[in-house]
Amino acid sequence: MKKLRVGIIGATGYVGIELLRLLLTHNEVEVTAISSSSFEGMNIADVYPNLLGYTNLKCENTDEVLEKSDLLFLALPHGLSEEIANTAVAKGKKVIDLGADFRLEDEKEYEKWYGKKYLYGSLHEKSVYGLCEVNRELIKKSPIIANPGCFPTSIALALTPLLKHKLIKKDGIIIDSKSGVTGAGRGLSLTSHYPESNENISPYKVGGVHRHIPEIEQSLGKAYGEEIRIVFTPHLIPVNRGILSTIYCELNEEVSYEKAYDTLVETYESEKFVNIVPKGQTASIKSVTLSNNCQISVHFDERANKLILCSVIDNMLKGAAGQAIQNMNIMMGYEENKGLEFLAPAF
Amino acid sequence: MKKLRVGIIGATGYVGIELLRLLLTHNEVEVTAISSSSFEGMNIADVYPNLLGYTNLKCENTDEVLEKSDLLFLALPHGLSEEIANTAVAKGKKVIDLGADFRLEDEKEYEKWYGKKYLYGSLHEKSVYGLCEVNRELIKKSPIIANPGCFPTSIALALTPLLKHKLIKKDGIIIDSKSGVTGAGRGLSLTSHYPESNENISPYKVGGVHRHIPEIEQSLGKAYGEEIRIVFTPHLIPVNRGILSTIYCELNEEVSYEKAYDTLVETYESEKFVNIVPKGQTASIKSVTLSNNCQISVHFDERANKLILCSVIDNMLKGAAGQAIQNMNIMMGYEENKGLEFLAPAF
Amino acid sequence: MKKLRVGIIGATGYVGIELLRLLLTHNEVEVTAISSSSFEGMNIADVYPNLLGYTNLKCENTDEVLEKSDLLFLALPHGLSEEIANTAVAKGKKVIDLGADFRLEDEKEYEKWYGKKYLYGSLHEKSVYGLCEVNRELIKKSPIIANPGCFPTSIALALTPLLKHKLIKKDGIIIDSKSGVTGAGRGLSLTSHYPESNENISPYKVGGVHRHIPEIEQSLGKAYGEEIRIVFTPHLIPVNRGILSTIYCELNEEVSYEKAYDTLVETYESEKFVNIVPKGQTASIKSVTLSNNCQISVHFDERANKLILCSVIDNMLKGAAGQAIQNMNIMMGYEENKGLEFLAPAF
Amino acid sequence: MKKLRVGIIGATGYVGIELLRLLLTHNEVEVTAISSSSFEGMNIADVYPNLLGYTNLKCENTDEVLEKSDLLFLALPHGLSEEIANTAVAKGKKVIDLGADFRLEDEKEYEKWYGKKYLYGSLHEKSVYGLCEVNRELIKKSPIIANPGCFPTSIALALTPLLKHKLIKKDGIIIDSKSGVTGAGRGLSLTSHYPESNENISPYKVGGVHRHIPEIEQSLGKAYGEEIRIVFTPHLIPVNRGILSTIYCELNEEVSYEKAYDTLVETYESEKFVNIVPKGQTASIKSVTLSNNCQISVHFDERANKLILCSVIDNMLKGAAGQAIQNMNIMMGYEENKGLEFLAPAF
Repeated sequence: MKKLRVGIIGATGYVGIELLRLLLTHNEVEVTAISSSSFEGMNIADVYPNLLGYTNLKCENTDEVLEKSDLLFLALPHGLSEEIANTAVAKGKKVIDLGADFRLEDEKEYEKWYGKKYLYGSLHEKSVYGLCEVNRELIKKSPIIANPGCFPTSIALALTPLLKHKLIKKDGIIIDSKSGVTGAGRGLSLTSHYPESNENISPYKVGGVHRHIPEIEQSLGKAYGEEIRIVFTPHLIPVNRGILSTIYCELNEEVSYEKAYDTLVETYESEKFVNIVPKGQTASIKSVTLSNNCQISVHFDERANKLILCSVIDNMLKGAAGQAIQNMNIMMGYEENKGLEFLAPAF
Repeated sequence: MKKLRVGIIGATGYVGIELLRLLLTHNEVEVTAISSSSFEGMNIADVYPNLLGYTNLKCENTDEVLEKSDLLFLALPHGLSEEIANTAVAKGKKVIDLGADFRLEDEKEYEKWYGKKYLYGSLHEKSVYGLCEVNRELIKKSPIIANPGCFPTSIALALTPLLKHKLIKKDGIIIDSKSGVTGAGRGLSLTSHYPESNENISPYKVGGVHRHIPEIEQSLGKAYGEEIRIVFTPHLIPVNRGILSTIYCELNEEVSYEKAYDTLVETYESEKFVNIVPKGQTASIKSVTLSNNCQISVHFDERANKLILCSVIDNMLKGAAGQAIQNMNIMMGYEENKGLEFLAPAF
Repeated sequence: MKKLRVGIIGATGYVGIELLRLLLTHNEVEVTAISSSSFEGMNIADVYPNLLGYTNLKCENTDEVLEKSDLLFLALPHGLSEEIANTAVAKGKKVIDLGADFRLEDEKEYEKWYGKKYLYGSLHEKSVYGLCEVNRELIKKSPIIANPGCFPTSIALALTPLLKHKLIKKDGIIIDSKSGVTGAGRGLSLTSHYPESNENISPYKVGGVHRHIPEIEQSLGKAYGEEIRIVFTPHLIPVNRGILSTIYCELNEEVSYEKAYDTLVETYESEKFVNIVPKGQTASIKSVTLSNNCQISVHFDERANKLILCSVIDNMLKGAAGQAIQNMNIMMGYEENKGLEFLAPAF
Repeated sequence: MKKLRVGIIGATGYVGIELLRLLLTHNEVEVTAISSSSFEGMNIADVYPNLLGYTNLKCENTDEVLEKSDLLFLALPHGLSEEIANTAVAKGKKVIDLGADFRLEDEKEYEKWYGKKYLYGSLHEKSVYGLCEVNRELIKKSPIIANPGCFPTSIALALTPLLKHKLIKKDGIIIDSKSGVTGAGRGLSLTSHYPESNENISPYKVGGVHRHIPEIEQSLGKAYGEEIRIVFTPHLIPVNRGILSTIYCELNEEVSYEKAYDTLVETYESEKFVNIVPKGQTASIKSVTLSNNCQISVHFDERANKLILCSVIDNMLKGAAGQAIQNMNIMMGYEENKGLEFLAPAF
């Protein structure tokens, strides 16, 4: 059977190279071209020696990738995808954007948090927010997928079923998230300088100022049917991969812990990539890093009447490249876990 | 001047050896004896090679240490200190207990969380909770100091001034704490097995079941004058040392962020070991690990009307051995930072 | 097509669980049974939560696994495999032993280094040393494979072609190896206790006393045709996975660096799992960890006339479970990289 | 007593800030001024928050520091110290240079490895190589100290006594060194980017091309009385601090392991900062990091007739700032361990 011609725009960033690693072993597709503004003309295996012996791809420019592929992954800094997506869609190609350009439905929110307007307002109507387990049917029909952010994925998967079924209160949700350093990308900074992030943990963007907030609130608000305000504090932890979101919320009156637990189990029963951890066990990132899985443990604090959820994903996989490939699989009608069958190593 | 004869009971655990390391360079004291049940008879420098060339102390038994010292540090598993403290005090010696035996004033709480009763009820009246910056005057007069737990220290230093001045609400306080692996001690366990804790973060004792909860609530309740219930979730992070407590609470009506900030600054203005981080900066553990310092950053989330505090200490120093020596300095009338003058390394 | 029934004896150690993780996605085989002496009767997914949702296998005993499978992986402490292999082979089953029981051809060497004699001397004649790239033809025909040790694999792959072609001197070879902590297994010890191995590097078994020495010398001696003596120093480094062997040796007269380099390139040109790094680049473990690959960089010190080789593998994959599956693929006539197609992540 | 006025040129690099941290608690000196080209005008505590509450020093320019201090520490990139030292010495000030400008006695070697000539040839006659335990008497009399490099310190302390007493052969010495990431400084680079150095070990400058080689050979040659050629391979390991040099050499005929061991013990018997590890134990960096100590373990490989030395230091302390302060103490006649009394933490 003929393979799908896929291309990666921005292949030498961390998200781009993770996409390439996975797509090279996905047997429905052929990576026909990749681009990189920093390494144009170079063999990708000279930039990333883990690929030595596995590919002869060279970094080209955006136009060449557009030309050579039918489905495009955009792994670019925020603000650079809209233009390319517009061109690609006009040519009948499919686009999966791993940046933020298409994530927010409300242009005002986008303007407020990103400081710019949409270039092509109508293009956004063709896009869908690619949280696979929630929007699967829409994803099948859309030419542009806004691949969700890493923190938002870990949070929305845990809270959506509870909000949708009105099992928890919409007010007072507090989310304390912890992310590995790859979340900050390959760009050099003191924050990611080994001696400063090693043996450290640092909260950042404390106080309601992280750009993932509107995306999280959009997901939760849709699930509940009303606007929701959250408190969200991200922390940088000294690991390469993984996100843990510890989520504090309150059960509605007459709702038991068991009801909440069972609802989560039922929601994800037939899902390949989301697992509810058995009662009495606690999720930790080690169980999911290097896989496309999300695990969620559910706890109840009787003394304070709080429901506590621990939701873990690999920020580069279910939080980025893995979910993007899952989206492609859904769009193209492949088996949903194609190319994503690998299990998390135990260590 | 004659040096104070000090002894360490339980010198080969992590808290004990950290005490020894510090006391060996404290020039008001002489460590006259140390005990260890596991390594009795051995040179301590053969157990801990970092001490090679610095001491010829041998591990003895408890009785020998009791005999040879006038001030005793007890670094023992919970439940073993009361008996020894009773004997020591009867002989006119001073005791600083780094376990939990004397931390809770309410015997019922102790029984509930630790599953046993006090052996010597009246002994507890002679003890004081050694949170130095809060109880300094009482510490001066007491023969038994209950050295605070690591999480409680990080939390009480941040919240006590705010509660005391009624700047925040007593309800709805949520504390999400992260601790380095030394907090679990030297005892072998899968939790501390390198391949399982490295590249991992794991919440544990989620849902109001960690034994530090009654200690935290005791401190906060005293500060506020009423009983307080908190939500507390500890996490294990892959660093050796350091605790970060991210604390979520709500300002009282008519109280501004500035008022809260200024109150913290004023409270700790003359304190050597507690610093409020300048506005706009965020505390991280790297700034305090390997020092006896606590740093607290203060943030306000306008969107959600929440005050967020990030409080960091070294769990082995301000959270254990460092505060114990600070307590000794207060008890004995030494300069409070004697033996604790070292600054945190930048990396 | 009917799948091969495979079993794992010793599935809950690190090597065993890594085998299981890989075999669960190998589409020529079905894991029919696993055993564990410590966790008999338990669901493996309760012991290793990374498997949650991927298998319902329970830990059984050795006899049950022997019964239910046609090919057995033995992932046991040294000394326990011979008996089981004997039984298995008698029943016409194939065995891949990941311990040391069948690695040494000379019983006297085995006795000297392991302190015991062979139980079944003739059984050893049926086994072959499973260094895939060197012994491929023998592996195809043998019912028992002695899967090589991790250090020996990294070393023999680098030195075999050079010794075989007499490009380097057999004397004066010095090997300084560095291994991640999973190499020490899941058994608890202070060496693997997080606070003691984190932020540390420790040489161990210095001075010609590591049990991998006779295995290394056997491989090198066979390649050269004469007995070889090496100096070998292993070090423990604070990473989960990966081995780097830095190898110092001397070119023979009239042999150029280019000749040595080209010989290595030619030897491994058609091999999927061994790559010689381009001149001017240096191998590091990050390029191979979490893959079955070996990368070797080749350097020449003109000032001292020494050839220096840096050989890297993942100790759990090419150094254990990965090579074992590669051996199975060779034995069974599957594509050699079946189940091992995944690339090393870039981070 | 009046304190010595000291200044640091280049205070915001890693070596500079480590000097400042130590000097702030050294009670014979006052840090009167510090400079930084990147952060001129800023409070140092805003650049390095670990100093919050400990100093109000601002970063000034070089001239101001020259003006305000009587002893200068130069913590600059190679090539920038000579000019400043010339000015300082002309004004009667003392200089401790932590760069390479004064380390090599042979200008031709300097030119060969650093690509430039001396600016002030005669100035170099006033300088001495500050390996404290070896050159103590010369250090006392010299106005300029060339503070040794980190790798050279770890190596020269181990080999000098053996070469001086002709216990080992001068030929065939191979040194395999491993260094923590702070050795690469605060400058941003992919090599020190957390996701690339974490879970990795990488050899670098393999094949006789590291600039520390002439410095090492100068030390060893002086000890032996003849020119010496070594093989030296540095590796980057994922720890913040610490150097381990694993050294392979050969005993001279008629020299026993005991003789070598005893000579090392005797040489360092009265030294505060160098300890020979008891026979049967092995040095690891954890025992010395965060102290000014060097520990050396000595091993014999009978099979191959090789002496193996494992020498460990903290690269930022005994390998840089610590030894610099030790040099100052010697120059000024202070107790040699003044300001350096702290012990290495056990974890």
